[in-house]
Amino acid sequence: MRGLMMDHPLLISSLIDYAADVHGHVEVVSRTVEGPVHRYTWKDARARSAQLAHALVGLGVGDGDRVGTIAWNGYRHLELYYGVSGMGAICHTMNPRLHPDQLTYIINHAEDRILCVDLTFVPLVAAVADRLETVEHVIVMTGRETMPESSLSDLLCYEELMEGRPEEYEWPMLDENAGASLCYTSGTTGNPKGVLYSHRSTVLHAFAASLPDALGVKEGQAILPVVPMFHANAWGVPYSAAILGAKLVFPGPHMDGESLTRLMRDEKVVASTGVPTIWMGLLDYWRANDTGVPSLELVAVGGAAPPRSMIRAFEEEFGIEFRQGWGMTETSPIGSLNVVTPELRRMPIEERLDVQVRQGRRIFGVDWRIVDEDGKALPHDGEAIGELQVRGPWVCSSYYEHDQEILDAEGWFSTGDIATLDSHGYMQITDRAKDVIKSGGEWISSIDLENVAMGHPDVAMAAVIGIPDAKWTERPLLVVQAREGSDVSKDEVLGFLKGKVADWWIPEAVVFVESMPVGGTGKVQKTRLRELYGQPKSKESEA
Amino acid sequence: MRGLMMDHPLLISSLIDYAADVHGHVEVVSRTVEGPVHRYTWKDARARSAQLAHALVGLGVGDGDRVGTIAWNGYRHLELYYGVSGMGAICHTMNPRLHPDQLTYIINHAEDRILCVDLTFVPLVAAVADRLETVEHVIVMTGRETMPESSLSDLLCYEELMEGRPEEYEWPMLDENAGASLCYTSGTTGNPKGVLYSHRSTVLHAFAASLPDALGVKEGQAILPVVPMFHANAWGVPYSAAILGAKLVFPGPHMDGESLTRLMRDEKVVASTGVPTIWMGLLDYWRANDTGVPSLELVAVGGAAPPRSMIRAFEEEFGIEFRQGWGMTETSPIGSLNVVTPELRRMPIEERLDVQVRQGRRIFGVDWRIVDEDGKALPHDGEAIGELQVRGPWVCSSYYEHDQEILDAEGWFSTGDIATLDSHGYMQITDRAKDVIKSGGEWISSIDLENVAMGHPDVAMAAVIGIPDAKWTERPLLVVQAREGSDVSKDEVLGFLKGKVADWWIPEAVVFVESMPVGGTGKVQKTRLRELYGQPKSKESEA
Repeated sequence: MRGLMMDHPLLISSLIDYAADVHGHVEVVSRTVEGPVHRYTWKDARARSAQLAHALVGLGVGDGDRVGTIAWNGYRHLELYYGVSGMGAICHTMNPRLHPDQLTYIINHAEDRILCVDLTFVPLVAAVADRLETVEHVIVMTGRETMPESSLSDLLCYEELMEGRPEEYEWPMLDENAGASLCYTSGTTGNPKGVLYSHRSTVLHAFAASLPDALGVKEGQAILPVVPMFHANAWGVPYSAAILGAKLVFPGPHMDGESLTRLMRDEKVVASTGVPTIWMGLLDYWRANDTGVPSLELVAVGGAAPPRSMIRAFEEEFGIEFRQGWGMTETSPIGSLNVVTPELRRMPIEERLDVQVRQGRRIFGVDWRIVDEDGKALPHDGEAIGELQVRGPWVCSSYYEHDQEILDAEGWFSTGDIATLDSHGYMQITDRAKDVIKSGGEWISSIDLENVAMGHPDVAMAAVIGIPDAKWTERPLLVVQAREGSDVSKDEVLGFLKGKVADWWIPEAVVFVESMPVGGTGKVQKTRLRELYGQPKSKESEA
Repeated sequence: MRGLMMDHPLLISSLIDYAADVHGHVEVVSRTVEGPVHRYTWKDARARSAQLAHALVGLGVGDGDRVGTIAWNGYRHLELYYGVSGMGAICHTMNPRLHPDQLTYIINHAEDRILCVDLTFVPLVAAVADRLETVEHVIVMTGRETMPESSLSDLLCYEELMEGRPEEYEWPMLDENAGASLCYTSGTTGNPKGVLYSHRSTVLHAFAASLPDALGVKEGQAILPVVPMFHANAWGVPYSAAILGAKLVFPGPHMDGESLTRLMRDEKVVASTGVPTIWMGLLDYWRANDTGVPSLELVAVGGAAPPRSMIRAFEEEFGIEFRQGWGMTETSPIGSLNVVTPELRRMPIEERLDVQVRQGRRIFGVDWRIVDEDGKALPHDGEAIGELQVRGPWVCSSYYEHDQEILDAEGWFSTGDIATLDSHGYMQITDRAKDVIKSGGEWISSIDLENVAMGHPDVAMAAVIGIPDAKWTERPLLVVQAREGSDVSKDEVLGFLKGKVADWWIPEAVVFVESMPVGGTGKVQKTRLRELYGQPKSKESEA
């Protein structure tokens, strides 16, 4: 029997309408590429999103067309989020740190008709312009007076396009399953693959991310997404902020510790989101300058597991809740969060950190399980290790223009993460499926080994890869970047592992490197390490 | 272009699964009809909901079948919410305060196959049993040892039915638009009409009601719904609590000031929801006993507009945020909330109360407008008065088994409330459409008149109805229930109105009554007043 409620679609346009109607006076503050801090209100943001939609219609953009963005976090990018998706086109965000070949591939694969780029990235586009097959217009996200010189002759000026356009746009009543935004995953193998978010998935994810134990800010409180808007929609913060009536603060390109600290203090930021690398920079700055941000209550981290020492620092040194989350581009991205519950708050710090280093518990809307190599579900007992699978209305079902089947027969998406699930609902990643080391028929967790090694005071970074071994199939190889000035030895490092992991996990070989290869999102590039050191016993590189 | 996200349904079963998996240790605490306080966890609640589903299958209940409940707020009612909807049947909650004729009509109209009733209401069912056309079983929500004597010979015992049933149930993957629960509105004219909520509408409403500026409690914090579970699903609190991981505290039949105070103190309740009558009782008790509830941060009120003095009392005397909301059975029910924003917090109290007496701003998901008598949209300027219309995924589209078309051509639902909307998004109800008084071609707000009259220290209750008038078409009649022991006169009351409302609004006639006729939900029954006093100048009843 069908319920008798309105068949009303969940649409991104209703987010910006809501923010403007209900939280119209709340500010959106942006540090700009051009330099100054820009501020306006949610009401202005809607008016300008409407103008943008009119401008795009003027350029011939229609339903389902892809409009690419290569931009920092800022108000014009926000207008693209709402204007493009609101009118029924697809906002395709791109990571400017990708290799030009990959960027070219992505633009051509998505068949972007328009590119909107911050001043910073005009040269990037100019460099690949002659290889772009579908792009009709490049719009520079700046005013007339700051339009750049460029080899590209027909650059359009964002502000010029907006001028005189009506500040109202009749957002179409779209199907909620229509595509709204597109983000390619920077896979370590093969070409990048596109995840095409729908209006429905975006709005539902925004609801979940807005919950009291997720972002959880109240009307008028300031939230600063350091996580880029080109990366899984900045974890949905620009959408959630519209529901919450949060003051949205954008750092632009200025993400160093000093710039962030100043912006956070000036705007009384309460919550901020970013990857561990960013928070390390912030911590270093705070310690070196004996400062901090008094208003800051919550730091959310994702993209990579934060070291225990980082969690301890925020919680103990600065009294800021440090909330780890887990997710992927394919999951919109939030899958889980590690909230400091009342029970955790009462525990001694080290015991609490034992819990806080995990990737947390699933957020409402996402369901999960772990399975063995045959796809058989494993118990949630904190012991069984299997591949994490997820399911829910904001998990992708296939990649854009890609015929690979990515769901299993029961509709689960395999994350490629190897994890445990315990009876309290906590998930802990032990490895990436492709990084796990199979030694003598058993699994060795590269992540666990790395975390222990990084506890050594002279180890700046550590990574573990599997190398072929005649007897054990694979053995772990520890790659170490020592702290500057340290002459720590192989034996010292291996001795440090002793007693902290199973004896048979301890690698035979250690490689010392000057600097660890790190990708655009701050993760160690294990593929590169495998290319360099993935052969058994390369004598000269051993310490 | 369709997005590429999973087509995963929003289901009520995923709420209870989430609560059990993630918040499994958090408690659900109930004062029972039988007397003692019962406590268990969300994990237990899921296990028992599963057992209940098995028991209902055993009784032949299938997809879409209606299972009626006549019950207080308590853990067994919670199990019915989740067990019945989870298995695909429809949980039909009923207001035990309805007239037996109406109750009979509703049960027959809904074609309930099963009735689940608290001990209190067995006599009620026994009294109408021979008129029930579709009920096959009556289940008493109690244990074997407390089963009552009754004229009904074949009563089933809830706990007996549960015994030995499996504690897991494979909840079906339903269509999210399937019906989940049914609630009849106690309309003042005609037969009650059923609103059939869907899984989708329930889950979306639960998301919205869980937001930081709605219920907004965090994991483990206690919330106490005084608003009955038979009334629009207790404003969705039992569903939101599952998402939030809130400790759910149920008062059972004990809703007087003393019982509520004790339960709130014992269970450290942080937020509570109820109608103004309840909060008046609580305030009276607190003042008489010089007490309060230190843990209580938020009191949410709906169902009727609270007097300004009540808002002031909670905010000023007790330091508790008093959050007015507006909604209807037809809107699931939350349509708007009046949050104390940072701006309001900074205002002088009287200025702030001018805002807090309004019905608030729309909640994300609900859209609204006001229209004139021709259905033309009116400006949101705080001046124009029109009928409030709403639209959104948790607004009803038609009544159950009722062929009346209730949406206009653009899909708006007319609420029957006459209201203003201002440029900051605030809605203020000036009248019910059926109560508004049309005098000399202009509208007089009965609510405004009542509110002013109730400000007189000797007026306990006041109600205004329209009476026919040869010259003006209608004129207002003021009905007053004076405070006990007061001998306030007509002239004193009318004199008090002078200067506080437009002169031409001031009634010519006042009727003094011993006690105001009040319906089951605490609202003055204006239909009854019209029956009694709705004729012009009934000499003997005038003061």
